[in-house]
Amino acid sequence: MLVMGVDPGSIVTGYGLVKKDGNRLTYVGGGDISFPKSWPFYLRVHGIFKSLIDIMQEYNPEEMSIEDVFFSKNVKSALKIGHARGAALVAAIQCNLKVFEYSPLQIKQSVVGYGRATKEQVSDMVKIILKLDIQLSFDASDALAMAICHQNWVKFDNIHR
Amino acid sequence: MLVMGVDPGSIVTGYGLVKKDGNRLTYVGGGDISFPKSWPFYLRVHGIFKSLIDIMQEYNPEEMSIEDVFFSKNVKSALKIGHARGAALVAAIQCNLKVFEYSPLQIKQSVVGYGRATKEQVSDMVKIILKLDIQLSFDASDALAMAICHQNWVKFDNIHR
Repeated sequence: MLVMGVDPGSIVTGYGLVKKDGNRLTYVGGGDISFPKSWPFYLRVHGIFKSLIDIMQEYNPEEMSIEDVFFSKNVKSALKIGHARGAALVAAIQCNLKVFEYSPLQIKQSVVGYGRATKEQVSDMVKIILKLDIQLSFDASDALAMAICHQNWVKFDNIHR
Repeated sequence: MLVMGVDPGSIVTGYGLVKKDGNRLTYVGGGDISFPKSWPFYLRVHGIFKSLIDIMQEYNPEEMSIEDVFFSKNVKSALKIGHARGAALVAAIQCNLKVFEYSPLQIKQSVVGYGRATKEQVSDMVKIILKLDIQLSFDASDALAMAICHQNWVKFDNIHR
């Protein structure tokens, strides 16, 4: 099964695709989506939607793993992340992906084994788990961590199947 | 020209369509979009997108007027309104509508002539301006107020044309 992790942000949205064959997790793709800051905010939000649709149509993932967001620095950043996350969710449902949400704690625990791990630790562990020797942005490695987290959870939870 | 006002909310999204012929503003349609609270939040966000797409395809408005949101009660409500507003913006761009954003002050001033008007005052003035004798929800009348505000602004501002 192919899972797409998405880490939506108003500046950069990371995505990562992880496949599972038996117990083996394989990296299928990943990267960053971003647009010039000179673009009106609403066009950047639409750009996130459109880019994710394109990626979903290219790779055909069956499920999306996304971080559940409850907190934010402040109201302004919460509004922005809300727009980006809304665009990502709409894209997933449009492409018939099932959506699964995990807390930051669950994601870090699943990948690093420690809920308060740093972005560097997450990135390092993602590369080890997926046997990657390429450079990853934190946004892409966070998205891959979400995909790994979901792949790890589903083996214990047949409700997901 | 036909303008669609949209007042996105995670519980209820109001919409209203106002046409302008010469100097005359006419009510074309309006109402509320909402979904059972038992639905997962991400399905309600997608429902806002899907419903707005359906309405846009039915009425073919050329422009969307939407409130610019900078403030919110708290981070949690900002995240929710962000998702709903993101879904509305994505729908508008998908349907090739031009997007225009106005502050709550501009909208109230344009309809009531007073930037701190209550929802009741806005609703009353919307009904007078559009010569309506039907009952309107506050969400629908707020959305119609946004459409009226944009129709009033464009006559002074040729950049919009």
